[in-house]
Amino acid sequence: MTYRAPVDQIRFILANIVPFDAVAGTETFAEASTDMVDAILGEAGRMASEVLAPLNESGDQTPARLENGVLRSSPGYEKGFQAIAEGGWIGLSAAPDFGGAGLPQAVNMAVAEFMAGACLALQLNPLLTQGQIEALEHHADDEMKALYLPKLISGEWSGTMNLTEPGAGSDVGALKTKAEPNGDGSYAITGQKIFITWGDCDLTENVCHAVLARLPDGPKGTKGISLFMVPKYLPDADGKPGTANSLKVVSLEHKMGIHGSPTCVMSYEGATGWLIGQEHGGMAAMFTMMNAARLGVGVQGVGVAEAALQKAVAYAAEREQFGPIIRHADVRRMLATSRAEVFAARAICLACATALDLAEATGDEDWGARAALLTPIAKTYGTDVGCRVADTAVQVHGGMGYIEETGASQYLRDVRITPIYEGTNGIQAMDLVGRKMMDGGAAAQALLDEIQDEARKISAAIPNCSEAVWTAAQTLSESTAKLAEMDMQDRFAGAVPYLSAFARVLGAYYHLRAADAGGEDEKALCRIFIHRILPRNAADLAELEAGVEDLNMLSDGALGLA
Amino acid sequence: MTYRAPVDQIRFILANIVPFDAVAGTETFAEASTDMVDAILGEAGRMASEVLAPLNESGDQTPARLENGVLRSSPGYEKGFQAIAEGGWIGLSAAPDFGGAGLPQAVNMAVAEFMAGACLALQLNPLLTQGQIEALEHHADDEMKALYLPKLISGEWSGTMNLTEPGAGSDVGALKTKAEPNGDGSYAITGQKIFITWGDCDLTENVCHAVLARLPDGPKGTKGISLFMVPKYLPDADGKPGTANSLKVVSLEHKMGIHGSPTCVMSYEGATGWLIGQEHGGMAAMFTMMNAARLGVGVQGVGVAEAALQKAVAYAAEREQFGPIIRHADVRRMLATSRAEVFAARAICLACATALDLAEATGDEDWGARAALLTPIAKTYGTDVGCRVADTAVQVHGGMGYIEETGASQYLRDVRITPIYEGTNGIQAMDLVGRKMMDGGAAAQALLDEIQDEARKISAAIPNCSEAVWTAAQTLSESTAKLAEMDMQDRFAGAVPYLSAFARVLGAYYHLRAADAGGEDEKALCRIFIHRILPRNAADLAELEAGVEDLNMLSDGALGLA
Repeated sequence: MTYRAPVDQIRFILANIVPFDAVAGTETFAEASTDMVDAILGEAGRMASEVLAPLNESGDQTPARLENGVLRSSPGYEKGFQAIAEGGWIGLSAAPDFGGAGLPQAVNMAVAEFMAGACLALQLNPLLTQGQIEALEHHADDEMKALYLPKLISGEWSGTMNLTEPGAGSDVGALKTKAEPNGDGSYAITGQKIFITWGDCDLTENVCHAVLARLPDGPKGTKGISLFMVPKYLPDADGKPGTANSLKVVSLEHKMGIHGSPTCVMSYEGATGWLIGQEHGGMAAMFTMMNAARLGVGVQGVGVAEAALQKAVAYAAEREQFGPIIRHADVRRMLATSRAEVFAARAICLACATALDLAEATGDEDWGARAALLTPIAKTYGTDVGCRVADTAVQVHGGMGYIEETGASQYLRDVRITPIYEGTNGIQAMDLVGRKMMDGGAAAQALLDEIQDEARKISAAIPNCSEAVWTAAQTLSESTAKLAEMDMQDRFAGAVPYLSAFARVLGAYYHLRAADAGGEDEKALCRIFIHRILPRNAADLAELEAGVEDLNMLSDGALGLA
Repeated sequence: MTYRAPVDQIRFILANIVPFDAVAGTETFAEASTDMVDAILGEAGRMASEVLAPLNESGDQTPARLENGVLRSSPGYEKGFQAIAEGGWIGLSAAPDFGGAGLPQAVNMAVAEFMAGACLALQLNPLLTQGQIEALEHHADDEMKALYLPKLISGEWSGTMNLTEPGAGSDVGALKTKAEPNGDGSYAITGQKIFITWGDCDLTENVCHAVLARLPDGPKGTKGISLFMVPKYLPDADGKPGTANSLKVVSLEHKMGIHGSPTCVMSYEGATGWLIGQEHGGMAAMFTMMNAARLGVGVQGVGVAEAALQKAVAYAAEREQFGPIIRHADVRRMLATSRAEVFAARAICLACATALDLAEATGDEDWGARAALLTPIAKTYGTDVGCRVADTAVQVHGGMGYIEETGASQYLRDVRITPIYEGTNGIQAMDLVGRKMMDGGAAAQALLDEIQDEARKISAAIPNCSEAVWTAAQTLSESTAKLAEMDMQDRFAGAVPYLSAFARVLGAYYHLRAADAGGEDEKALCRIFIHRILPRNAADLAELEAGVEDLNMLSDGALGLA
């Protein structure tokens, strides 16, 4: 029993749930015909299922390690990475000028889901490289693009993101890494970075570090931060890896999961780097990298959820305790609600990706606002579903789920990082209720209006469910209006519950569309989501209205502080 | 920063929330005066915090292992076990005739919480011995009692439960282990058992296995099962460990957590055993063991939740990102709702324990029914809170929570077994809606009536909260009446949500009592539980009403079966 990429489910969502036809109808993505996309998904699915999935356990059992300062990745990863690079999967959405395929993010994210479901620890490597590619495409000058993009897109070189420092996590502006001009257009970078995913890599001939640092004249906080390209080996005159740069991996972290992904403490000791974009413009470039990665992390959650659920369903069909346990009402409830949430999370991620594609292809600001609104929701709900479903899959396995050999617990340990990295889910929720509501809630209300209009149209097909979706959207719309009037601390106290409620309305809406377009199974799954999951919105929106006051009335001692 | 046993919180609950004064007022437990109990809790708390807590990481880093078939427990465990045994903590509630202290389960469970919070993997050892002690007290003949109980109570010998087999987990009746009479009153036991916690032990001079097996004339299913005492070493004429019995540990499991607790595959090869209780009466004896252990496992969840929350609170007070993160609304929400749930779970466990004590001391069947009703709720809610709070504690730590050295992820990995063993939480919920409703819901309704009466009395102190509790109890009472009329498959489909809703009503009620008896902090925490957690009941009770139909309409293929 191994992972099978859910190719048909992606096809169904692209065909029926999200406006992928509009994406394929633009000039930019004219090549993304149904036949083309079908072929790509089929090929990526085979690669993920057949080449990557068999490597998942190897990374867990034999973690990446440092040997005298040299990184050794897990057994088999070389073959897996080769399949990713040679298949052209790293540059699927990258600019054709530098060897990319220029295809929509919707397709890229579908492929990312397959790879993450098959082997999360290895998939992190191309995910971060893709983030760097996007940052370079948007912010680098032509010379840097020409030097780095072809290598990153081909997989000859890999890319990393160096943001976090011991005292600067969510508060990026507190960073201490310095960049001093060398006088020749390059800079000397000095400082320590932590939690650097794939901070070294023996699968590629060079590792390109995108490093946040402060110039001597950089103001305090985030406004004084710049982004630098700091390669492990300095490119020579022919663009080949030359002299080793003054940087090193100090140590690897011992983590709960994703053992195959080396998480590095990096030390830069006057390392040579070049500015990406403008001086003090690092945050803009960082957000380009992080936005791509944020949606990608939500997709990771969906991928692992799919893999864990497949394993649990297969076990439940085989395991006999008073008959196969897949027939037991409680086990079936666990599996069915998990399946309903996986569908919802996948649809939200692909809706976000198509909004990004339409924003890029049409330049329409409304699509940009839609993508910006959906990004924190996709990241948070995708990773929450990842953890919830992986946890349920362990439970379905009973005692066997707690035994490492079964593989169920690896999914739970691996996916547990996803609500933390690329901005914790709490930070995502604050982004939603703060920055993303600076329009007074206009983008949110536009989406909810659209949902209500569509729900009315669909009402003939499945009347009760349509009404439930319409009403849930109405309630959320009213809460959104209240939210826009709330003090920021009150918003933050209710940010996570509000985001969850928003995700459920989206999920219910996409289920409704699926029920309309599909058959009896889609209708049953829609009812399961609407009767068993959507009703949780009332409690979450009640929590939003509670504000921050009761939390502040409780003393730290009552929380348990010594 | 290390674990501090929450002695004051236990004292507060015993004094104000549960009827411990009634327990101490009985003849049976007359010794359990306030001074005596205070002294015991203080002493146990010191032992747990100072001796056991420092061993927690050692068990995780250096798991128990088999060396040529001989078990070696984790470094330092010997000292920890010695402190437990010499303190008299194993026999705290055991019969004084055989060296026990004869104190109430409420006190015993408080001490168990401290030990589990300090070092779960080691605490499992005395927990299982206690279950065996109780089974022997209730079912063994005088000779067996005299031989085994003093040794188990003193900690010279340890006890295990051997129920599960590869094909017989939740379906115990499917077991294949055989017991054949030897003609001298003993039996030859042959079969394989799995998931045997502390199935061998180098901390004690003998290991007493309570083994379920079927006699040659035993009918199929659970009615043909008997329980046997099968010691590792056969006691000689002086009651000392003599000849080695024909049993062995085949292997140890590699688990997600509780690495310090050896989980054994056991093989019995004509091993000598003696009947505990009646022929074919194994299920009754097993339920005695399991009932004690079920509440004990709920208490484990509370203990780990407390430890994980203390760690998260301490980290949040120290960690500065735009000021200490304990002041951030979202972090404070996570910590405060966790604290509110830990209180609720602890109070439910102690309410169950006092009901057990009152049933034992008074013989009143109503208290027996109350304890039987509360046991699956305490087990499930305690362990759910354990997992939820440990998970939240990881999230509060951000990236540091995912690094093993921090210790936050160990709590999550360790506690994840508790919703699985001693009957999965799904099985517990089915027990609640099935067996525990065979009285037509009388015991449940009596408890809800009591809650409504008390809520009315308290209403002057905190008006809105009292009303919320009264209303929630009313709604649950109506759902319970509906449940009692439902088909069993429909009940099972809603069993887990119904149990969660029941636990929240209990939790809200105990918070209300705490607010009435306590100060501003108790009132704030009560409001947090009632405004942020209790509202989840509506969705759970809606799910109960959904029944099983929609689950059965979804095909296995739509669940994801290949």
